[in-house]
Amino acid sequence: MSSDAAGMRVTVWGENAHEQRDESVRAIYPDGMHETIARGLRAHLHPTAVVRTATLDQPSCGLDAATLEETDVLTWWGHIAHDRVDDAVVDAVCERVHRGMGLVVLHSGHWSKVFKKLMGTSCNLRWRSAEDRETVWTVDPAHPIAEGVPDGFVIESQEMYGEFFDIPRPDELVFISSFSGGEVFRSGSCFHRGYGRIFYFSPGDQEFPVYHHAVVQRVIANGVLWARRDSGVRASRYELERKDLGWLDAAGGQP
Amino acid sequence: MSSDAAGMRVTVWGENAHEQRDESVRAIYPDGMHETIARGLRAHLHPTAVVRTATLDQPSCGLDAATLEETDVLTWWGHIAHDRVDDAVVDAVCERVHRGMGLVVLHSGHWSKVFKKLMGTSCNLRWRSAEDRETVWTVDPAHPIAEGVPDGFVIESQEMYGEFFDIPRPDELVFISSFSGGEVFRSGSCFHRGYGRIFYFSPGDQEFPVYHHAVVQRVIANGVLWARRDSGVRASRYELERKDLGWLDAAGGQP
Amino acid sequence: MSSDAAGMRVTVWGENAHEQRDESVRAIYPDGMHETIARGLRAHLHPTAVVRTATLDQPSCGLDAATLEETDVLTWWGHIAHDRVDDAVVDAVCERVHRGMGLVVLHSGHWSKVFKKLMGTSCNLRWRSAEDRETVWTVDPAHPIAEGVPDGFVIESQEMYGEFFDIPRPDELVFISSFSGGEVFRSGSCFHRGYGRIFYFSPGDQEFPVYHHAVVQRVIANGVLWARRDSGVRASRYELERKDLGWLDAAGGQP
Amino acid sequence: MSSDAAGMRVTVWGENAHEQRDESVRAIYPDGMHETIARGLRAHLHPTAVVRTATLDQPSCGLDAATLEETDVLTWWGHIAHDRVDDAVVDAVCERVHRGMGLVVLHSGHWSKVFKKLMGTSCNLRWRSAEDRETVWTVDPAHPIAEGVPDGFVIESQEMYGEFFDIPRPDELVFISSFSGGEVFRSGSCFHRGYGRIFYFSPGDQEFPVYHHAVVQRVIANGVLWARRDSGVRASRYELERKDLGWLDAAGGQP
Repeated sequence: MSSDAAGMRVTVWGENAHEQRDESVRAIYPDGMHETIARGLRAHLHPTAVVRTATLDQPSCGLDAATLEETDVLTWWGHIAHDRVDDAVVDAVCERVHRGMGLVVLHSGHWSKVFKKLMGTSCNLRWRSAEDRETVWTVDPAHPIAEGVPDGFVIESQEMYGEFFDIPRPDELVFISSFSGGEVFRSGSCFHRGYGRIFYFSPGDQEFPVYHHAVVQRVIANGVLWARRDSGVRASRYELERKDLGWLDAAGGQP
Repeated sequence: MSSDAAGMRVTVWGENAHEQRDESVRAIYPDGMHETIARGLRAHLHPTAVVRTATLDQPSCGLDAATLEETDVLTWWGHIAHDRVDDAVVDAVCERVHRGMGLVVLHSGHWSKVFKKLMGTSCNLRWRSAEDRETVWTVDPAHPIAEGVPDGFVIESQEMYGEFFDIPRPDELVFISSFSGGEVFRSGSCFHRGYGRIFYFSPGDQEFPVYHHAVVQRVIANGVLWARRDSGVRASRYELERKDLGWLDAAGGQP
Repeated sequence: MSSDAAGMRVTVWGENAHEQRDESVRAIYPDGMHETIARGLRAHLHPTAVVRTATLDQPSCGLDAATLEETDVLTWWGHIAHDRVDDAVVDAVCERVHRGMGLVVLHSGHWSKVFKKLMGTSCNLRWRSAEDRETVWTVDPAHPIAEGVPDGFVIESQEMYGEFFDIPRPDELVFISSFSGGEVFRSGSCFHRGYGRIFYFSPGDQEFPVYHHAVVQRVIANGVLWARRDSGVRASRYELERKDLGWLDAAGGQP
Repeated sequence: MSSDAAGMRVTVWGENAHEQRDESVRAIYPDGMHETIARGLRAHLHPTAVVRTATLDQPSCGLDAATLEETDVLTWWGHIAHDRVDDAVVDAVCERVHRGMGLVVLHSGHWSKVFKKLMGTSCNLRWRSAEDRETVWTVDPAHPIAEGVPDGFVIESQEMYGEFFDIPRPDELVFISSFSGGEVFRSGSCFHRGYGRIFYFSPGDQEFPVYHHAVVQRVIANGVLWARRDSGVRASRYELERKDLGWLDAAGGQP
């Protein structure tokens, strides 16, 4: 458990749609994928960290203003209901990321409105759901998200996500995966947007028990720790500002 | 003149609003800023390159489908009329960048709908219009856009753009500027989006004769050359694709 | 004070040559620059962190094997005696960085054997010692090293370091400075080498009281915190390894 | 054929040791690997480009001062005789890269003195010579080196190179490979050092006919084109320079 996480407030957002519809998914995640993800985080973070869940079927898609204001890091899993997330919620989440909230986007969250808006790209990729074997490799062992993670690890059964993955060049590339069909994927990548940090991690799917995998849980916890700002989320986002000559001195040399 | 530009088709887009309204701007740019920028490009590119202009007051904001389809690289200058650019035009420009069209965004174009959508950030900054002296420094002399550009050069009178500039971390940072007030700015930066390349260059303003500056013209020409794909703009953008196991072999090993 | 620093072992290495020779330097740093830097770190790090100093005039240049083995993060300041650092010490420091020791290189340390070897470039720059005013700007406010640091801050009297600074493109660029003469400098930049993290910070000089500056002390402390691996320095560096087919499974799926 | 290559002077350096010793290698590369590589380049570059070869067994390791001075881009393949390259030649090659010569490092050249010195890391990796199937994927289709290269392509029989590959974070990552054993490798990556550009491309081995592969030849040609500076190699490298206040104006605003 990390002392960095003392007092941290994490919200695990889950679409919670497959779980209502597909017996196969309920068999793997009887309490919902969000609960499994949340449980993994609670095991890795500090006892004083608070990990709650929120789901699409709740009022304001589970992310009303009060909930967002109490969230230091948000994790996001969605798949078949991206379009049902209100644009106002999308805007509020992006605005809070710009103010410094950490965001961890998981698997099919690559196609969420939130992620596509923050990336500025299509976030398209190649895919196949056919029980591929995925091997995840650490390519930046000096990165905080790689702490305690082996050089490589296997996920026996998994959906394939393959390149080209249409994202901006990652600020930091931590993991690359291969699949049974020979495909590769930049599976762990970091981005900065405004005052906020974003980690995308592709392993994880509703049809496979990936979120029960011990190393996957560790990586997600590391991502949450990395994405959190020690100095907290700012009260307002950065704005366009006119500054007269001499403003810096007028501000005592420290704006 | 560069042989790389043979047959290249460039469209210089200008908002052309200050020129209609402000005598001070007409005095510096009697034919419009777009014409000055286009003239600079014609002087640097290959004789067979075609440099045309397009302006906001034309039908489809000057960028109908046919014009876009005939454009290898688009340059963009806007300032007071960003909101008057139709969203459909914004979408078409971004879609064509994703397919491989080069985009060179100039100065106040940092706040255009097109640039903000492609960046995924606010693109806010600090600014002052008070005849600052700007010094532009090359920080990546190995970059193609720095070819033939001095280590540093002075623009005697200029609007100040200062950090924090809220953009994603540039894929490649080529120039950094300082100003009379001590501010700094990442003034030349490169981004990849899909199959397209984007160069942002901040020097240039309607109230100062910056686009008549010989080195500024050279940098913009270098940016246009860098942003152009030799293999042309693709017919369609990259899409989400399901790929069955064995698809790569079925495609003869080269999808 | 940061809980991240609990139990951290920092060694502040100082050349300690100007202090023996120049009255002007002793007037500013009566106990040596290394002591001032160490004091600043002690004020910012956790009470259980141990901050010691080491100097060139000590046996093994102050960095014998035992000292290095007990160092999680090393800070480096040198100027007129780079050549007097034994190559064996240089190799040992670089090898430990590759194994995960953090390294914070300060000011004229840009020309140390250690930094040049880790960068693979000349690390040359432009300079002037003429009481310039330096303004340091944060260009990546989401970076851990920028936590609690203002958007910009002034150092009233300082040596000028100007671009082009011949380093590899930084993995992460946190600060950019401007000077009275209009020069700019990438003053805070991050690199990964093997399992180790390196932070270079240029403010600081023997003729100016820069290491007494509160914000400078905060940045250096942030750099030390960022450079430290939670999982510690590894016992051995990464080696070239032959791996037969199936090695990953033989290793239980986690090498 | 690219007009960019008009008049370009390329030197293909080959260790030429396996070819003298191993019948198996001669069977694949009867004229030496360097000749195969050179032939591929001649087919892709402009008719006026001059592609010569140089080998370790020649005087000055094939790279005397005159040869280097007439080289715009150097390609490098070595494997079992890295230590036999004179340090003076290594220094001369690195110095010329710093002045702007392009460098394309191939396969086992990752362990050459030249590459390790320019990287500042161990350049270690995992490997296996067991007829793996390698699939190379384009992860930055907007990059010049990816022009005309398919999204992915297969090399049927190849040595495995696997992560962690101990290099600095690449400035630009163009290709990632997977192997039969599930390993991945950053197989095409770009670096800037001083005024020079470096491209590392891992496919290619003495025991497999990889340099006869049409797409591999195209990628190497693209790498050579990308690495060449239009403005040529500079007469001297960048040096540490003292600059008095006002030097920029004294230089007419353009140093």
